[in-house]
Amino acid sequence: MKKLFYPKSVAVIGVSPNQTNLGRNIVFNLIDFGFDGIVYAVGANGGMFATRRIYKSLLDIPDHVDLAVILVPARFVPDILEECGQKGVQRAIIETAGFSEYSEEGRALEEQMIAIAEKYEIRFTGPNSIGAINMENGFCVPFARLEPQSHVGSVSMISQSGGVGMSIMNHMAKEGIGLNKFVSIGNASNISAEDLLEYMIEDEGTQIIFMYLEGINDGRRLMQLAKHSPKPVLVFKSNVGKLGHNIAASHTGALSSDDQVVEAAFHQCGITRVHDVTTLSNYMKTLRLPPLKGNRLAIISRSGGHAIIAADACEKTGFTLSEFPQEFIQEIEKHFRASVIKLTNPLDLGDILDLDVYRRIVSETLVRDNVDGVVFLHTSVDKTERDNNAKLIGSLAQMCQQQNKPVAIYLSAGEDEIDALMEQFDFPIFTRIVETFQALKLSYDHTQIIAGTSKDDDPPLFAVNSKRVNELVESGMSKKRNLLLHEAMEVLKQYGIPTIRSGVAASSVEAKNFADNFGYPVAMKLVSEDVLHKSDVGGVELNLRDGSTVEQSYDKMMARVRKSYPLAKLVGAMIQPMAARGRELIVGGRQDKQFGPVVLVGMGGIFVEIFEEATIRVAPISEREARAMVDELKGSQILQGARGQQKFDIDSLVEVILRISQLLVEFPKISELDINPLRINHENKGCVALDARIILNC
Amino acid sequence: MKKLFYPKSVAVIGVSPNQTNLGRNIVFNLIDFGFDGIVYAVGANGGMFATRRIYKSLLDIPDHVDLAVILVPARFVPDILEECGQKGVQRAIIETAGFSEYSEEGRALEEQMIAIAEKYEIRFTGPNSIGAINMENGFCVPFARLEPQSHVGSVSMISQSGGVGMSIMNHMAKEGIGLNKFVSIGNASNISAEDLLEYMIEDEGTQIIFMYLEGINDGRRLMQLAKHSPKPVLVFKSNVGKLGHNIAASHTGALSSDDQVVEAAFHQCGITRVHDVTTLSNYMKTLRLPPLKGNRLAIISRSGGHAIIAADACEKTGFTLSEFPQEFIQEIEKHFRASVIKLTNPLDLGDILDLDVYRRIVSETLVRDNVDGVVFLHTSVDKTERDNNAKLIGSLAQMCQQQNKPVAIYLSAGEDEIDALMEQFDFPIFTRIVETFQALKLSYDHTQIIAGTSKDDDPPLFAVNSKRVNELVESGMSKKRNLLLHEAMEVLKQYGIPTIRSGVAASSVEAKNFADNFGYPVAMKLVSEDVLHKSDVGGVELNLRDGSTVEQSYDKMMARVRKSYPLAKLVGAMIQPMAARGRELIVGGRQDKQFGPVVLVGMGGIFVEIFEEATIRVAPISEREARAMVDELKGSQILQGARGQQKFDIDSLVEVILRISQLLVEFPKISELDINPLRINHENKGCVALDARIILNC
Repeated sequence: MKKLFYPKSVAVIGVSPNQTNLGRNIVFNLIDFGFDGIVYAVGANGGMFATRRIYKSLLDIPDHVDLAVILVPARFVPDILEECGQKGVQRAIIETAGFSEYSEEGRALEEQMIAIAEKYEIRFTGPNSIGAINMENGFCVPFARLEPQSHVGSVSMISQSGGVGMSIMNHMAKEGIGLNKFVSIGNASNISAEDLLEYMIEDEGTQIIFMYLEGINDGRRLMQLAKHSPKPVLVFKSNVGKLGHNIAASHTGALSSDDQVVEAAFHQCGITRVHDVTTLSNYMKTLRLPPLKGNRLAIISRSGGHAIIAADACEKTGFTLSEFPQEFIQEIEKHFRASVIKLTNPLDLGDILDLDVYRRIVSETLVRDNVDGVVFLHTSVDKTERDNNAKLIGSLAQMCQQQNKPVAIYLSAGEDEIDALMEQFDFPIFTRIVETFQALKLSYDHTQIIAGTSKDDDPPLFAVNSKRVNELVESGMSKKRNLLLHEAMEVLKQYGIPTIRSGVAASSVEAKNFADNFGYPVAMKLVSEDVLHKSDVGGVELNLRDGSTVEQSYDKMMARVRKSYPLAKLVGAMIQPMAARGRELIVGGRQDKQFGPVVLVGMGGIFVEIFEEATIRVAPISEREARAMVDELKGSQILQGARGQQKFDIDSLVEVILRISQLLVEFPKISELDINPLRINHENKGCVALDARIILNC
Repeated sequence: MKKLFYPKSVAVIGVSPNQTNLGRNIVFNLIDFGFDGIVYAVGANGGMFATRRIYKSLLDIPDHVDLAVILVPARFVPDILEECGQKGVQRAIIETAGFSEYSEEGRALEEQMIAIAEKYEIRFTGPNSIGAINMENGFCVPFARLEPQSHVGSVSMISQSGGVGMSIMNHMAKEGIGLNKFVSIGNASNISAEDLLEYMIEDEGTQIIFMYLEGINDGRRLMQLAKHSPKPVLVFKSNVGKLGHNIAASHTGALSSDDQVVEAAFHQCGITRVHDVTTLSNYMKTLRLPPLKGNRLAIISRSGGHAIIAADACEKTGFTLSEFPQEFIQEIEKHFRASVIKLTNPLDLGDILDLDVYRRIVSETLVRDNVDGVVFLHTSVDKTERDNNAKLIGSLAQMCQQQNKPVAIYLSAGEDEIDALMEQFDFPIFTRIVETFQALKLSYDHTQIIAGTSKDDDPPLFAVNSKRVNELVESGMSKKRNLLLHEAMEVLKQYGIPTIRSGVAASSVEAKNFADNFGYPVAMKLVSEDVLHKSDVGGVELNLRDGSTVEQSYDKMMARVRKSYPLAKLVGAMIQPMAARGRELIVGGRQDKQFGPVVLVGMGGIFVEIFEEATIRVAPISEREARAMVDELKGSQILQGARGQQKFDIDSLVEVILRISQLLVEFPKISELDINPLRINHENKGCVALDARIILNC
């Protein structure tokens, strides 16, 4: 992949002498950004521009070419790629649009290109890519003419959309955040976002990775890579709602994903998700500071008002303020002209005007053991201070490195001064107080995540009877039907999940016999492969209190269902004893098309309406994750015994979740499963599945 | 108040020839901003600077002076104010700090100043103010030297902190938001934030009012003013958390408020609260557009990626996308070069490059009846487009005015270009997509609020027996004690709130008699003026099932309480029948020090732990507000009959809230009241208070 960003020779294909030709922009960008390799221009009509020869064909170039940038009409691209193969050009960036995102013909062309690339072992980005940039060697090939920049930064960006990538680069420039590499992946038909992420994780110049994605290709690989990345990975994933789906499909051909799964997956693998550029640029800033290892901050401010806003923000983001012991305050007090202001944290610099004293106070504060980081709120009062402000910021930046602790500098000043300072220092300057704390929070969370993932945290592996489950699944598959209620219950049982006693009755008499055997009251549930939602057709009866009621109910249920589904195959009804008291939960899972098996848990009963959402994770999960799923449930206080009430058996619930996780991983043919309800009893009393549904991928 | 911003002659007091003198900055600011009145410099030592005479005393100035700006050491300020009075100077801006926010001596000086001002009818802002600005006449008196600006905008700012005010002005300048007037109120010991708000509402040049407040002075007046303001009022209220309290007290002497009450009060009177400057500047931008009257938007974008992000943001903020009928799409299709892109809303401008066509498409879209506003996402591709971009923005701005509908322009471009455009147009340019929609949401909500407040929405007035309540309250006040349990229950009863049957027993025999009379089971609750939290000392027994249990329980309870409170005066115990099934709620209220009476309602029982918060309103409230309080309760679905369960009697709950609201308004001596629990029954079955606590302000 390195060859994509560090070519020694580049052919730009699609150049003409015409003033409006976009290929020329690519050549100009390479010149303007000071590319340290050789550039050849290629265009079918030949000619020249800007003192350069335009070769009529790639094959005419006398020397070896490392990389081709292709911007010719879509129908010519396969031929050009063929030529690349013949000439031994192994990397290409295809900027032409109008392929699978556009029409069926385009899709056919794209498939041709994929085949040619495979034949010659060419790796390419695009098509429908705006190009790539490497600030380290001046490799800059977007077809839009860019303002030359020389500043090499540490943030690299992988963007599915060229336009969005460009606008984020504008924001980064505005906020003084230096770029290292940029690549727009477009339709990603050969090199994927995950390939590029893998490269960026290894790339020396890259310290922070940002991805803009409209769709997710290989969710599992993305998670694996991010999980083991020592570098922070930030992702802006759009195409979340219904309104954006169509336009996304015609933009980069991106398919929509289940956003709840995306959210869970990112969380599990330590990807930080951003939803807007304001947050993004604050994160990019804070991640360039030394990591914040604890949550104890000191706030030092030139303005009392800023200190108040900062204290509020500090509290709201969950940080605490370090206590300053008396001797430290006395030390600091010496710097003040009149020692009357009550010194505390936040520290109002009050009547001190000398910036050198600010530096000393920050320095004395930062070295303290109980201070994990400093937020320094500065105000530029006057033009005359400009040079001193720059000096101060420079020395605070140095201080950060020496102490390996962050000093987040907020500066209130005119735009000119801020721009000049951002230009001068590759050190973040914040211009909004609340966001400064939100950004520090990320730095802190990131440190925690990195520390957390190093822990031994493997999913458990239970001894289960997967042979029997396989039989049930294969039997369903071969009959092209989902599992029947009692089969689904058996699957749970074979995976060690407690299920309620039950029997399947094929007649009212059998039903009564089971009921007599279990004791009253009982529940009766329809068993039929043709009825997916049995409650909707009156296929569930609860609290049947005696034998004659059971018999009557059986006949009535069959008649009722028969009316709704005249052709349905009715196996009979499952009879179960009614469960004792307890709380109802829903545990289940499904196969997600991008991320594979996911498990979920939610509150059941009346709480479904109130809390709505369930918590979700990509399987397999560890015990820690399963426990976190339960803790995150709104309403989990009830399980934990709110108001001195008895606790419920959370341990057994956690085990059910883990066993379901294992089941879904081991049986990808189970496309959907839910236990609804799972009844949870008080502590040490376990839980029991009362009903289950298993949908097969057949 | 107008004289504060439009003086014809100004004396700056505290000027010296010394280079570091801050008074000079004030004079320079007036000169630089082109003040259209006469400026006199005054300083105790006289002399001259910059060709101006420095008068030794205000009294030496031969002409009339409209306004004095005072920046002399604190101890001299009262004398200067005395001189103002003698000379007939009726307005002053006191910038000196070091008064009540600083020390007890300072507080004494400040009280002197207040008295002098009263004597001479002088109105002043400050002390501890950074000054004021009026862009209309170049009146600019902060003691920090400012960059001259000529652009007169429509936003006026009232800031408690000078430093924060200045930093927000920096942000406004950066975002191209023009200022009209600015005033820093500091300690606000004479002219208050509310006085200034009243003025700004009437001030012609002001269209949008922004206040930065660290404390709230007269909450009721603030609400009254905001409620009747036709201009949007934005407030950034800091000093919210615990960490900021001390520093706020020493900064502007601001006291903390109950933030939940502040939040409710702002909501009730239509104040839009902001918590950071990013949101603030987006709001200031969107409020300068014509109002968004409906929630149907059209998104038109040059970049597909931006369109996707916009569609997501549109959905997330609760807007919908207008449907484009076929004939309209055919009309638009004519503009496209190749008519292959599937046109829809969001509209991807695809292969159109001509900006004039963009203008025509936006125009054709904006006039449509089913389009309430347009979000136009533009990308500056290249330097050569700059002039055309400016032309396009100019005509879109005009279009907005003509159609009286908003076109929110998002622009992705280099910083230079954006700055230049913001300079050129007094029209908002957004640079972040997600925030653009959040800002439009505010515009929409604001229109709704304005429409809502015009509705007849008066609090009801119930016929109640306030005479008897007054007796109970006065009797408690005279004995310097809170109301006893049965008195509190009687207060509720006299205000028409259903209470459960009960009797106060002074012996175990009496207790049994009451219980026999009510029927079993019964509840028993301690009655004692000396025990505030009776549950904590075992003063509540529920579900007592027979007479002997009642007798024993009575004696045990008295003994138990006596052990905890040996000296407590024990009146006895209240006996009540146990309430039938239903849900428990808490209804109550208290006197807030800034906003007066507030009412609250919350879920009771197990839900207290889960949902925690209650909804709160400043009393008196209308029926609509009371109903909204219930709707906003997390868990209100239960009351509304979640999952086909029976509904609870919300109407009766609403009436209880309204009656409590009236009670608290009519009896300010009741400093705290709660009904806990109030048991609510199913529809049409009413609700009943089971327990009550009334704390008096004695």
